[in-house]
Amino acid sequence: MASARFDVLGIGNAIVDVIARTDDAFLAQQKMRKGTMQLIDEARAAKLYDAMGPAVEVSGGSAANTIVGVASLGARAAFIGKVKDDELGRVFAHDIRAAGVAFATPPASAGPSTACCYVLVTPDGERTMNTYLGAAQDLHPNDIDADAITAAQIIYLEGYLWDPPRAKEAFLKAAKIAHAAERDVALTLSDAFCVDRYRLEFLELIRAGTVDLVFANERELHSLYETADFDTALNALRSDARLGVVTRSEKGCLVVTREQTQAIPASPVERLVDATGAGDLFAAGFLTGLSRGTDYRTAARLGAVVAAEVIQHLGARPETSLKALAQDNGFDL
Amino acid sequence: MASARFDVLGIGNAIVDVIARTDDAFLAQQKMRKGTMQLIDEARAAKLYDAMGPAVEVSGGSAANTIVGVASLGARAAFIGKVKDDELGRVFAHDIRAAGVAFATPPASAGPSTACCYVLVTPDGERTMNTYLGAAQDLHPNDIDADAITAAQIIYLEGYLWDPPRAKEAFLKAAKIAHAAERDVALTLSDAFCVDRYRLEFLELIRAGTVDLVFANERELHSLYETADFDTALNALRSDARLGVVTRSEKGCLVVTREQTQAIPASPVERLVDATGAGDLFAAGFLTGLSRGTDYRTAARLGAVVAAEVIQHLGARPETSLKALAQDNGFDL
Repeated sequence: MASARFDVLGIGNAIVDVIARTDDAFLAQQKMRKGTMQLIDEARAAKLYDAMGPAVEVSGGSAANTIVGVASLGARAAFIGKVKDDELGRVFAHDIRAAGVAFATPPASAGPSTACCYVLVTPDGERTMNTYLGAAQDLHPNDIDADAITAAQIIYLEGYLWDPPRAKEAFLKAAKIAHAAERDVALTLSDAFCVDRYRLEFLELIRAGTVDLVFANERELHSLYETADFDTALNALRSDARLGVVTRSEKGCLVVTREQTQAIPASPVERLVDATGAGDLFAAGFLTGLSRGTDYRTAARLGAVVAAEVIQHLGARPETSLKALAQDNGFDL
Repeated sequence: MASARFDVLGIGNAIVDVIARTDDAFLAQQKMRKGTMQLIDEARAAKLYDAMGPAVEVSGGSAANTIVGVASLGARAAFIGKVKDDELGRVFAHDIRAAGVAFATPPASAGPSTACCYVLVTPDGERTMNTYLGAAQDLHPNDIDADAITAAQIIYLEGYLWDPPRAKEAFLKAAKIAHAAERDVALTLSDAFCVDRYRLEFLELIRAGTVDLVFANERELHSLYETADFDTALNALRSDARLGVVTRSEKGCLVVTREQTQAIPASPVERLVDATGAGDLFAAGFLTGLSRGTDYRTAARLGAVVAAEVIQHLGARPETSLKALAQDNGFDL
């Protein structure tokens, strides 16, 4: 196996978040399911934007947030995702590059505008997401840079890539190249309703070994195995996946292999402001730990520390150096 | 005098802030004067954006921030300013309307893009601003809606309007219409270097009574009267202006008329995060108080309360209902 030029390379939808505070009444009036992500078309996006309050724009995208977290932890990071050559596309590209991430996917010069996720944050800190995929729809297998994939120790893919029409092919192409180069492939299940849309395909990816490591939260895990019983779902994951990580919000996480289950507590949080990015940043810490050769427990503890940072402010990108934060918490990265 | 449809109408540069955290070394390397605003052209804006870190986009503009604060306090507010019909122009228009402000200035369909202010926030909470005026350059006397001006109890104008070529004419037209309708005209001096660029014109506006109320911070006041002695400058303002308000950061503010000087303390702040918008929101509170018929001391106390809110988070727009905040602080609005 050649030496790696990147510690982690992520592939995902390139999205700018449009974040507004709201209340439960607005969610009800707009018929939204709190805490979930739903896809919306351009007309719905325009109507929702008209109806919602003043907002803040911050670069987002699940895997992109993770990769920015990896870079902020001091690891070498790269990202593949599609924006348009428009103002928000330039915002996305600036922010991810300014965070130290290699990002070379050419922007679309025509077609729909850069993807936006309208994130509504309720006073309890929960986020409800409405994604207009826009230019992210145009991610294509040709956007997969084989050299970059081969040069990355871990490839990280988001389940949301099953939504755009050809991103799935890009995903599978990347996984194949990675395995041929003896690299590891990680997948986040992204969202319980995303799992609902693509359950059989996700199970096949896991069972066939197309992915080596699966990240899921409790709702996604229940959805994947269509059971309300947590232990049943966890046992199924243990037998299907080489390595599984189940995040459980304030209850911490479980790391499962065929041999054992380890429980790691969450990091203390003074005030939950906005849960957006909690899972993304947990993955950033875990993947960075793995790429540095730590054991699973240490990697999960690092994930918990950086997830706690991101939920104490608005937006899913770190507001401080995660490397310094990790060092303050005793991690030697 | 006809009854007013708006309590306060603001005219200013319509700007989207691009806010990034930085350190003093970056300011030095970029040859910036900390705590000031400087105008930059498109080429410089592009270079600066490349060099700066990941950012957050939030609608800004000095008078626009003030007017959003007025609306958030529950008063009836309107704004006149120029954006382009582009993505950031739509962001600006959405945010100000979603805040409850009447905003009807038609966007430019051609020419430079919507104005951006690159705001660099140092760890001490101070902000250093670099403004690319873009479409705000195109504010024209024809954009002044005489009906709206006549219908507003107070017109609020920013000194920054002297920078774009024809906004000054728009300013003077608005002041003339306002006075013909027996309305009050308020001006903020905006920035010490802005005062330096237009000192004689600003003095003439104040001395001729084109403006009835002047807002200045200490640096602007020193610049206006070209003296390092605070009392000399304050006495000059007292003799020139019908009503002057001098803000002094943590030292509170002074309200001066020909008859008396009143000192009002600042509101306590737990943690200064970003000073952007402190003066803008102080003006929002003061103007709202005046429009509600409070005495100057009460208006200044309201200004202090809402200024304290905005400096405890990133960005110059309120993150909470200022009306509720004012009520919690004993104001009856």
